[in-house]
Amino acid sequence: MKSIGQIGEFGLIERIRKKIKSSRDIILGAGDDAAVMRPPQGYELVTTDALVDGVDFELGKTPARLVGRKLLAINLSDIAAMAGLPKYAVVSMGLVARLSIQWVDEFLSGLLDMAKKYHVALVGGDISRAKELWASLALAGETGPGRQWVGRGGAKPGDAIFVTGALGGSISGKHLRFEPRIKEARWLARRFYPTSMIDISDGFLQDIGHILSQSGVGAEIYAGQIPVSRAAKTLSKQFKKGKSPLEHALTDGEDFELIFTVSEKISRKIPKQVHGTPLWRVGKILKEKQLILFESEKRDKKINISKKGFQHF
Amino acid sequence: MKSIGQIGEFGLIERIRKKIKSSRDIILGAGDDAAVMRPPQGYELVTTDALVDGVDFELGKTPARLVGRKLLAINLSDIAAMAGLPKYAVVSMGLVARLSIQWVDEFLSGLLDMAKKYHVALVGGDISRAKELWASLALAGETGPGRQWVGRGGAKPGDAIFVTGALGGSISGKHLRFEPRIKEARWLARRFYPTSMIDISDGFLQDIGHILSQSGVGAEIYAGQIPVSRAAKTLSKQFKKGKSPLEHALTDGEDFELIFTVSEKISRKIPKQVHGTPLWRVGKILKEKQLILFESEKRDKKINISKKGFQHF
Repeated sequence: MKSIGQIGEFGLIERIRKKIKSSRDIILGAGDDAAVMRPPQGYELVTTDALVDGVDFELGKTPARLVGRKLLAINLSDIAAMAGLPKYAVVSMGLVARLSIQWVDEFLSGLLDMAKKYHVALVGGDISRAKELWASLALAGETGPGRQWVGRGGAKPGDAIFVTGALGGSISGKHLRFEPRIKEARWLARRFYPTSMIDISDGFLQDIGHILSQSGVGAEIYAGQIPVSRAAKTLSKQFKKGKSPLEHALTDGEDFELIFTVSEKISRKIPKQVHGTPLWRVGKILKEKQLILFESEKRDKKINISKKGFQHF
Repeated sequence: MKSIGQIGEFGLIERIRKKIKSSRDIILGAGDDAAVMRPPQGYELVTTDALVDGVDFELGKTPARLVGRKLLAINLSDIAAMAGLPKYAVVSMGLVARLSIQWVDEFLSGLLDMAKKYHVALVGGDISRAKELWASLALAGETGPGRQWVGRGGAKPGDAIFVTGALGGSISGKHLRFEPRIKEARWLARRFYPTSMIDISDGFLQDIGHILSQSGVGAEIYAGQIPVSRAAKTLSKQFKKGKSPLEHALTDGEDFELIFTVSEKISRKIPKQVHGTPLWRVGKILKEKQLILFESEKRDKKINISKKGFQHF
């Protein structure tokens, strides 16, 4: 199989362009100076996120399909966290000359499969020569007509805190194969008016922290109600001096589940699951700007939170 | 001055966020999962382009301000080539740990000065750890209400071919300091309905080639009417066995001038300059799919074009 260096930039771009399908909203896709689209409905949303070899994946170890899939998925997760609907993406890559065309084909096929599944059009891109492999994607979305986005800054004292799915141990595989919570977020936003929402990329405690600081509030979390994933339990067993399953659930990054808050009144109507994804009530927003971790909702035993992970008792 | 490694990702993001100003169309800028904007008017345009250390600039040699400036300018040039109005950008960077904060500050200040000048809002970004320095930017724009974009595919036999500015020798400095032809393109599109347009990034001959292949036509170019820049002449003198000034003008990349075509009838109304930028009539679109270079409009002496540069006579 040929390498990037052999096929050249124009050959590669032509190869990629042929694989890209168009859609109704795309007036002009990749191949001109800029892509032309019908503008989004409601508000427009935009986010960007990149993957770098040796940091976010390992060339020769992580399957190229899953790198392509993840590049779109991490951006989809950001649009999900705003309760948005993804629309179109542009991708920019730094490719090393020795890279095989097969790698690029597989990367692209992983990216395009995910794009198809979430109705995202890939409308443009840029390829640079580089000494290390990286890929950056910018994704635009919309709220839809008359619809609102959900930010990080609207949590209010008394609000209930929920989380989707199960947390921890994403590194065992979920970080490459997760489904961004687009459908769940749209459904929640339509029925339950979340006051704030974020996706877990840095770890539950860190990400709830973003909601708290941007909303100017605090929270109490009930450890016993945190959904601990099987992967968190397995990981904890494998490394006996490592984190406990709960610590994995509370501090592991790249879970891409949603944390959201709703008013106490609305919280009683939240079902146990949506589209097959479980919803867990895990805490409450406080007026005082602090983050307290209780063992349970009874609030009788505190767990001390340290900067890196946290200490029991 | 501290390095990136010392200040950390969150510190750096906070530092950058503070420097970013908001605008009327931005509902929510950097700092949430995605930015929120009022949607563009007319059609939406989007493009992406990246700069890589060692390829597009040299760390320690190219001033950081000019790298930041160029990152936005090359994307602005793509929006200009569609006759669009730029609106907002997201930037994604791979930063090496040893990089100084000062470099990032200067890079950002070059980028933001340019953003201010062209009314572009920087609405989000992403920072990755990397082994080499790179930066990628995605820029969205609009045609404006009821306005059309100008692509590469509409040139028709008989159309006149024009070029802005003066060509060649961009490497001597213009590639870092050029003004993207936003105003000129808007003005031309409003009054003269260009049938096609492209910005010169790969070199005049290569880029007119894109117009020809996407329009399914050919062209004749009059060498004597090509505006040869002072830089092209100086460069040619410096390297006696190198390209002639005309060869520089016709083949040098990163000129970021516009090539555009208009109907023969309209071409007679095109003024000598717009907003201080000269406009040159340099050729004619042909039905036959070939690119012929004549010495002058008299069409009596041909110049042979080879793949790399071209040969006189």
